[in-house]
Amino acid sequence: MKHILAAAATLAVLAPVAGHAQWAKPEDAIKYRQSAFAVMGTHFSRIGAMVNGRVPFDTKVAADNAALVATVSKLPGGAFPAGSDTGMNTKALPAIWKDTAKFTAAYENMMGAVAKLPAAAGSLDTLKPAFASAADTCKACHDDFRAK
Amino acid sequence: MKHILAAAATLAVLAPVAGHAQWAKPEDAIKYRQSAFAVMGTHFSRIGAMVNGRVPFDTKVAADNAALVATVSKLPGGAFPAGSDTGMNTKALPAIWKDTAKFTAAYENMMGAVAKLPAAAGSLDTLKPAFASAADTCKACHDDFRAK
Repeated sequence: MKHILAAAATLAVLAPVAGHAQWAKPEDAIKYRQSAFAVMGTHFSRIGAMVNGRVPFDTKVAADNAALVATVSKLPGGAFPAGSDTGMNTKALPAIWKDTAKFTAAYENMMGAVAKLPAAAGSLDTLKPAFASAADTCKACHDDFRAK
Repeated sequence: MKHILAAAATLAVLAPVAGHAQWAKPEDAIKYRQSAFAVMGTHFSRIGAMVNGRVPFDTKVAADNAALVATVSKLPGGAFPAGSDTGMNTKALPAIWKDTAKFTAAYENMMGAVAKLPAAAGSLDTLKPAFASAADTCKACHDDFRAK
């Protein structure tokens, strides 16, 4: 059962977290991935606000947001099934399904970079470069795989 | 600073997780809470699919989804600032801001019920009643505080 489902998924490398992807329809996947990215973006931005001096640095806030970003970063990767390239104003570009290997690599770069945020959240000195590296992976993926 | 922000928040009891709520505009809060509920709902539904026999029970899938639901359940509570009662097709009812104590209690009931899911995820026998209790808290809050 699992193997059948895995084979059916376009992005098998990005194994869906917490259960095989079971999208009743493509729109469900689109809504889910957009929602997960929105949650991740909000918490990533809260780290950015501290990194950029807009709000005071607070180790607990940094650690909590870093943990959330790291957790949520794993979720949307499993939500790009074939057929979810259109609908619901998705900005996902066809390149995701045409060059899946490159997309998967870009996605994994992002997960790797944000996975380093929790350990870096203890001080601004360590958080700044980790945040910048993670932000670079966001941009790289958006440049290639998300419509402007 | 934190006290000022907390006092400004309508729902101070639902302390925002991972940092004080800093919504540039009400729409940001609406988008965030809708996104967080959508992510939570997806993972809650995956538990439901096992509980209801639509997919085979799998302890790891159950545990992963339960952990995600418990984590994400804490997020949207901080995203009901004053002024976010309209816009973006929000289904949030005025009662949230009119009877904040009741809403807060309903929200906390939900968090309490889903917090029990991870420990209950080891078997269907324990998961079923925990899922049902959590689902009841979803419905209770939706009945009173979300437009149909």
